Amino acid sequence: MTGIFYGIGVGPGDPELVTLKAQKILSRVDILCVPKSRMEKESLAMSVVRAVADREHNLLELEFPMSMDREILEQSWQNAGRQVAEKLMAGQDVAFITIGDPTLYSTFGYLLRFIKLNYPQVPVEIVPGVSSITACPAALLEPLVEGDEKLAVVPAAYNLDDLKNIIDLFDTVVLMKVNRRLPEIMQFLQQYDNLQTFFVSRCGYPDQLTTAKPETVLAQNLHYMSLLVVKKSKP
Amino acid sequence: MTGIFYGIGVGPGDPELVTLKAQKILSRVDILCVPKSRMEKESLAMSVVRAVADREHNLLELEFPMSMDREILEQSWQNAGRQVAEKLMAGQDVAFITIGDPTLYSTFGYLLRFIKLNYPQVPVEIVPGVSSITACPAALLEPLVEGDEKLAVVPAAYNLDDLKNIIDLFDTVVLMKVNRRLPEIMQFLQQYDNLQTFFVSRCGYPDQLTTAKPETVLAQNLHYMSLLVVKKSKP
Repeated sequence: MTGIFYGIGVGPGDPELVTLKAQKILSRVDILCVPKSRMEKESLAMSVVRAVADREHNLLELEFPMSMDREILEQSWQNAGRQVAEKLMAGQDVAFITIGDPTLYSTFGYLLRFIKLNYPQVPVEIVPGVSSITACPAALLEPLVEGDEKLAVVPAAYNLDDLKNIIDLFDTVVLMKVNRRLPEIMQFLQQYDNLQTFFVSRCGYPDQLTTAKPETVLAQNLHYMSLLVVKKSKP
Repeated sequence: MTGIFYGIGVGPGDPELVTLKAQKILSRVDILCVPKSRMEKESLAMSVVRAVADREHNLLELEFPMSMDREILEQSWQNAGRQVAEKLMAGQDVAFITIGDPTLYSTFGYLLRFIKLNYPQVPVEIVPGVSSITACPAALLEPLVEGDEKLAVVPAAYNLDDLKNIIDLFDTVVLMKVNRRLPEIMQFLQQYDNLQTFFVSRCGYPDQLTTAKPETVLAQNLHYMSLLVVKKSKP
């Protein structure tokens, strides 16, 4: 009997936004699999788990280098996958935890592919979580899309020509991890007179910042957990 | 003292995917505000609430006509808004419940606008929920977007020229409420040889259907809670 491999979304950071299902599995499973955190002293996902699960866990810390080299990345995903597989093959359940949702921009995807390909006998379960894509509009008290509106979600790497085409086609555009490019993007958006723009940083944390004037955001608030919601004004 | 107006996402339908925060508020608040259901005998959101909240609620059923006439719609939102405001002005907390998330294609947006405009003194809180946009990929065991990939979310009303442009620009496209247009869309997608397409219907319910062969889906499974995930194959 192999263990079950869980991918668990713990929501945007506020422990109250964990689902009942995630809490239940986190209270039962022994091994937690967490990406070794680069930006923060303690993994954000781990601090959420500590707040909702009433037990100690064995941690399996996985290293994912910040590299653009495809080969180095592949290597690290395979190393991580093998460590996870070893526990699963020993009959232990393993839960990979991720801030937000495991299907949205999470390292879980790479591990999932490795396990599905090399250990097809392992049962996998994904527990979806509340994503910052909707937690931020909730904090702003602004609907994201209504009726027949179209929504685009775009991470930090894109060129401004693509962004122009996307704004033409879509009613709402969410720009993820916008911190490094905020001044450049705000300048680019000045050409439009039919857009409303909202900035949210560290959604759900005590130092959360929300504003409808992103151009006033200070450099010290450009945390990597920042996003911009760009909406077409309605007639 | 006015009451608090809550917009609460109860997740895609599985009561286990309700958040701790939603459960807490639903167990405390007296008045639940639900759109009068057209498609189902009992509101889906209500059945989720009954499964997680240990109390009886007073229901405020709001009628929203299935109309394309802007004036009729405006009238119904205002009627609904006034009914909600009456309770709030009497000092009662009111929770509007919605399947999925209140900022994504929910009637809550219209009520929110009405209350913000006409009763700016009312405190409003939105509790984000797990959306079918990530619950469906979770059920499929397929990541939605990774790394620098771009995600488009498109409701049922669009023309195929727009869809072509969207597929050109995006890595993953989620087509919502795809039921009526599934045969037409599948035929349209045949022109591409670099796409993977997945269909999910009634995600999280006992009769959930997931398939990587949407062309095989029978008409009887074309429930309005259906979506299509279209992903570009990776090299």
